[in-house]
Amino acid sequence: MSNVLIIGAGRSATSLIQYMLDKGQQHNWFITVADADVQLAESKVNKHPQGRAVWLDVMKPNDRKELISRADIVISLLPAHLHTEVAYDCLKLHKHLITASYISKEMYKLSDEARSRELIFMGEMGLDPGIDHMSAMQSIHAIRAKGGHITAFRSYAGGLIAPESDTNPWHYKFTWNPRNVVLAGQGTAQYLENNKLRFIPYNRLFREYHTVNVPGMGPFEAYANRDSLWYRSIYELNDIPSILRGTLRYPGFCDAWNALVQIGLTDSSFPILDSGNITYQELMEAYIGKHIPGQSLKDRTARFLGVEPLSPVMEKLEWLGLFSRKKINLPNASPALILEHLLLGKWKLSPSDKDMVVMQHEFEYLMEGQRRLLTSTMVMKGRDQQDTAMARLVGLPLGILAKLVLLKKVTATGVNIPVMEEVYDPVLEELKEYGVIFEEQDRPLAG
Amino acid sequence: MSNVLIIGAGRSATSLIQYMLDKGQQHNWFITVADADVQLAESKVNKHPQGRAVWLDVMKPNDRKELISRADIVISLLPAHLHTEVAYDCLKLHKHLITASYISKEMYKLSDEARSRELIFMGEMGLDPGIDHMSAMQSIHAIRAKGGHITAFRSYAGGLIAPESDTNPWHYKFTWNPRNVVLAGQGTAQYLENNKLRFIPYNRLFREYHTVNVPGMGPFEAYANRDSLWYRSIYELNDIPSILRGTLRYPGFCDAWNALVQIGLTDSSFPILDSGNITYQELMEAYIGKHIPGQSLKDRTARFLGVEPLSPVMEKLEWLGLFSRKKINLPNASPALILEHLLLGKWKLSPSDKDMVVMQHEFEYLMEGQRRLLTSTMVMKGRDQQDTAMARLVGLPLGILAKLVLLKKVTATGVNIPVMEEVYDPVLEELKEYGVIFEEQDRPLAG
Repeated sequence: MSNVLIIGAGRSATSLIQYMLDKGQQHNWFITVADADVQLAESKVNKHPQGRAVWLDVMKPNDRKELISRADIVISLLPAHLHTEVAYDCLKLHKHLITASYISKEMYKLSDEARSRELIFMGEMGLDPGIDHMSAMQSIHAIRAKGGHITAFRSYAGGLIAPESDTNPWHYKFTWNPRNVVLAGQGTAQYLENNKLRFIPYNRLFREYHTVNVPGMGPFEAYANRDSLWYRSIYELNDIPSILRGTLRYPGFCDAWNALVQIGLTDSSFPILDSGNITYQELMEAYIGKHIPGQSLKDRTARFLGVEPLSPVMEKLEWLGLFSRKKINLPNASPALILEHLLLGKWKLSPSDKDMVVMQHEFEYLMEGQRRLLTSTMVMKGRDQQDTAMARLVGLPLGILAKLVLLKKVTATGVNIPVMEEVYDPVLEELKEYGVIFEEQDRPLAG
Repeated sequence: MSNVLIIGAGRSATSLIQYMLDKGQQHNWFITVADADVQLAESKVNKHPQGRAVWLDVMKPNDRKELISRADIVISLLPAHLHTEVAYDCLKLHKHLITASYISKEMYKLSDEARSRELIFMGEMGLDPGIDHMSAMQSIHAIRAKGGHITAFRSYAGGLIAPESDTNPWHYKFTWNPRNVVLAGQGTAQYLENNKLRFIPYNRLFREYHTVNVPGMGPFEAYANRDSLWYRSIYELNDIPSILRGTLRYPGFCDAWNALVQIGLTDSSFPILDSGNITYQELMEAYIGKHIPGQSLKDRTARFLGVEPLSPVMEKLEWLGLFSRKKINLPNASPALILEHLLLGKWKLSPSDKDMVVMQHEFEYLMEGQRRLLTSTMVMKGRDQQDTAMARLVGLPLGILAKLVLLKKVTATGVNIPVMEEVYDPVLEELKEYGVIFEEQDRPLAG
């Protein structure tokens, strides 16, 4: 009997736990789900005969090592910065490790040692990063196999709300980590366009979005993700003239989010000493007050932002309650924390809300002297607040890879991301059973 | 014989070392100057009979403790984040500690323990923070003593170039840590104006400057420093309606620096993978390129910034060489590091250049029913590239306090900043001998 340890039972663990329990029954594996909130873990294991829930404070090295020592493979859903400790344990105790997080520099340093112990440390094995890598590499290899030469690659993904559950003027609700949504894009985005470097600093990121048409879904706004250049070598596209990774939002989102950035509400670097006592209106006054005296705060805000008082941007700010006389009631909170707290109430999924994930790759390539465009699109909707597309798409690839590793069908060792055929082919194939279908359109381009 | 340990022999140590060697001769103290660059330390001790230079890698705890154990008092000129380790050593080994840095939360936590051991841990004992605290508190106490009620406090300081050495269109040269100049203002400035909170995020900080007139020197631009609200309690001004701390620059600086911020050149958060191979022009193209095709890079930059192609802002950017075809030649550097490197060559003091420090406090107060304004101004020029006003004004307060502590003239214990009369009175008095004179103007205000 093999033992699987899943660390973390939160939002993105639901589908993974269910998948592993199912497969555990089939293959006689035993699944241990560890979380600091043991009731949460218990509710997800749900007394399944092949599973158990245990309490774990991951900061206690002995408890952690004890659990890891009894497993054959560890799937960590911890926040990214905690993976390194788990990885050290896995090295020492000779255990495979799978995560959905971006691989850090510290993690990459463990690659040789993991390889020498014949261990698989697979990172970026969720949705984005994860399914994006696998589906992109499959298409890149397929275009090459038929003699195509790729000249541009653009990859987009968005965790969104399904149109039928879209009930607010932002056309957005939280379907993943709210903190990451609030801080998204800080730094400078880098990409390549016709062999020219393009840098977009945070203060312009949500202003300089572009439109992406998703077949059957209509237009979306896309803003650039930070590190597109990094993926040239990973995707074996070292000499490609154009590469861009972007995030998708419904139309209207970026202008309004840009307003929050320009006002200053996404700054997480300083606490507001008086934030326990002031109202949202006073917070906005502090940011806007100085600009044009003698006008209402709303008028001054609109003027500061360069929009009309009745514009869609102002409608969205007002809907959030930023001009209300309600107390913020969060002492010593940073502006970003105040905003997160406000959005948590406003952008919450209701029990029957369906989320939606959209992923689209665009490949421009030359074949037999002709320019062509391959568009590969995946859209998945969730069932309700609990069974989200996001949780399925993050959790299932982790589970499928764990199964492949336990069945000894993966030969790659060391620290990796899922860009090799032996991983992406069977994982994408099995994902189809769960409705993860990439629809392709391939057509000639003018010029 | 008492022993004084000075850790750090860099730019701001020159006047301090000279002062301590002089006083050492008078009082029979022995001065040890420790630095990783022992030749630098030797050059500053200059074979003085009361001093010696030693090599110290401050990251080696045993070497550090060995040196500290032999001292009676430690003056640390290390970067701020290294003070905490030194402070732990000083606690264990029962030594007084003086620094010129802002006191961190970690440092404040040591206060009770330092007090119980009757140790003086004095931070913020340089120029700004340092002389600003002392001179402000002296004026605040003086206004109160004569029955005045303070209604507004604004405090400004600037490390500048003297007018006679001002030879570039930015009217600025480096007279202190270049990295801190490049990163200055990141976060959000907070202050209070007529009982209203005012927040200015970084992306607006250098746009929303105001003018400060310094008697005899003319107008300066002032931008807000991050943490003015914090100083309400420190300056015993808890109920004051207006408080602001600001940084002074010559006119024209802020608009041009704002251009660098808006373009994105002050971001230190990501490395540019290709920065070893590209030119400054290509860097600027990456930021600006996309905006308006078919125009020269300079024209597009001017248009992006909303200024005329021949405007003073564009003149300053051009003078820096941002449009040149010179290679950057710094692999994997962040935009902020590239900018710092460029500025280091352009804003370097020549051997005979004189720097200048300007500090000005403005107190509005009510006395006998009358509104009055007290302006207290200090201007000091350096002699040359080595003997700078900055080094004197950072180093001398540290030295004078060390002397007072060794002569047992300070009773305050625990972690402190110099806001108590027993410190600021004798220190400011002795500073006068070195030309640190605050000129006061006190006049009625209309209304």
